Amino acid sequence: MKIAIFSVGGTIDKVYFDKLSQYQVGFPSVRAILESLPIAFEYEIQSLLRKDSLDMDDADRQFIKQRVAAQHCRRIIITHGTDTMIETGKALSDLNGKCIVLTGAMEPANFKSSDAVFNIGVAVGAVSSLPDGVYIAMNGRIFNPFQCQKNRDQGIFEEL
Amino acid sequence: MKIAIFSVGGTIDKVYFDKLSQYQVGFPSVRAILESLPIAFEYEIQSLLRKDSLDMDDADRQFIKQRVAAQHCRRIIITHGTDTMIETGKALSDLNGKCIVLTGAMEPANFKSSDAVFNIGVAVGAVSSLPDGVYIAMNGRIFNPFQCQKNRDQGIFEEL
Amino acid sequence: MKIAIFSVGGTIDKVYFDKLSQYQVGFPSVRAILESLPIAFEYEIQSLLRKDSLDMDDADRQFIKQRVAAQHCRRIIITHGTDTMIETGKALSDLNGKCIVLTGAMEPANFKSSDAVFNIGVAVGAVSSLPDGVYIAMNGRIFNPFQCQKNRDQGIFEEL
Amino acid sequence: MKIAIFSVGGTIDKVYFDKLSQYQVGFPSVRAILESLPIAFEYEIQSLLRKDSLDMDDADRQFIKQRVAAQHCRRIIITHGTDTMIETGKALSDLNGKCIVLTGAMEPANFKSSDAVFNIGVAVGAVSSLPDGVYIAMNGRIFNPFQCQKNRDQGIFEEL
Repeated sequence: MKIAIFSVGGTIDKVYFDKLSQYQVGFPSVRAILESLPIAFEYEIQSLLRKDSLDMDDADRQFIKQRVAAQHCRRIIITHGTDTMIETGKALSDLNGKCIVLTGAMEPANFKSSDAVFNIGVAVGAVSSLPDGVYIAMNGRIFNPFQCQKNRDQGIFEEL
Repeated sequence: MKIAIFSVGGTIDKVYFDKLSQYQVGFPSVRAILESLPIAFEYEIQSLLRKDSLDMDDADRQFIKQRVAAQHCRRIIITHGTDTMIETGKALSDLNGKCIVLTGAMEPANFKSSDAVFNIGVAVGAVSSLPDGVYIAMNGRIFNPFQCQKNRDQGIFEEL
Repeated sequence: MKIAIFSVGGTIDKVYFDKLSQYQVGFPSVRAILESLPIAFEYEIQSLLRKDSLDMDDADRQFIKQRVAAQHCRRIIITHGTDTMIETGKALSDLNGKCIVLTGAMEPANFKSSDAVFNIGVAVGAVSSLPDGVYIAMNGRIFNPFQCQKNRDQGIFEEL
Repeated sequence: MKIAIFSVGGTIDKVYFDKLSQYQVGFPSVRAILESLPIAFEYEIQSLLRKDSLDMDDADRQFIKQRVAAQHCRRIIITHGTDTMIETGKALSDLNGKCIVLTGAMEPANFKSSDAVFNIGVAVGAVSSLPDGVYIAMNGRIFNPFQCQKNRDQGIFEEL
């Protein structure tokens, strides 16, 4: 089994520079996570963008879509900022023949309390199990991007 | 969505006492893991056994089977020692109407390099996505218990 | 042996809110750190301020000085932001009969790669060992506040 | 400032092999700890022994003593098993011109709840601050090896 993994940025990859309390979107944290674990599937990771998802626009989504469409692997995970993960999921929904799971994190992977490792696990479990389609894997649940929303106050994704 | 989680012991729950280099199988580590994360599904956790899986026998498996069969929830995760996880999976395979995912860890949850959080994530993703049946979720893969084995030398599960 | 610990804020106690990429100075992280360890000395922790040290002024330093002077315990640790830790150290230098060690962290205690636990260890080792005076404990070294500086580019404290 | 660090084994360096619930004393964990931190002092690390301290004998202690005596650096830290750390400390007590601090951990460095990072911090703070002599740095306290004992029931070192 092989999974193609694309990273496009978001909180999961954020790195803070404390002197000025600023941050950058760093390298794909999914790489260090998977390299640290006893994994028995093949994967390749490509960093497409390093953006806060609030800064992503339609051109970014078209670029992601082209790259996903060009990927031979059927199983695809995209690590993405949570604020517009649903929009990107909708933009990919007319791609055929692929199982695409978007995930991310409410806290950067380098925070002690980050949900990144768990969420990537959920995404791996989902992409290994689901039929073709586009899915959001957040908070331990698998959502249809057309039937969910991010509840900012509670910091969780929920069904519409 | 609700998931019923049963813990029966295994490495994932092992606690070492260094003075004598001995260990006990402690409380279900899955509880602390899920409580530390922003989870959006309902779950309940029951500790059925606290055994190294090499010490489990047929009576233990019948006990687990009874408790799983009596559970109303369709989605079930069992945290289990890796050495006989496959045997327990086979023993549960004639239960109908349930999606049962067994998982565990190659290293105890309280080791810094443990695979426990990731594996529980994979199990949650799988149990949310799969049709009725019994599955093994280890090393980022979902296996049929009749078509996999634990490769002790490499420390991973693999297809037969 | 007893140590009085004062927290006044700084990076060590920073908590990030990712949605808006802002932070607050949270509760004293030194408390959770010491409570998680097998400690054999008595201590009490008081939160005096919760400020980024760039926002501290002379009135803040006088307030800290009053509270330190009023403390009966001879051994005192202050967790402090790194940007003006040296200034506070100088302001406390005419207090007699006390061994005062200031420490902090280059990364918040809740980052996986934080130096907070180590630095608090160094401060505990120093305050247990040194004669009366005021000291800076950063980067594994013990400095005289009048003979050191923070090298922002390298992110370390160094001798003048 | 330079610190010479010797590792001789002990719980701090233990690595567990779960399949058989056995362990080995691995490589010096102090190396990975210091390499992960923003350290501003020079150090060199030598692995002298890799033993559970209950397995150390007089010949081991003479070997350690020779190596410590031959070291030019005045400041020396020894990471050591906790069960006979005090005996080794006593054996080194007639060395002149050196400040020697022994430390270790109640839990292996690769356990999430390990005291290793904190204890090494305490040892660094102590060895930077103390006059010539031999000291035990455990549980956040600095002990004279002739005036302390390990309380096994409570898992802490205490004064005699």
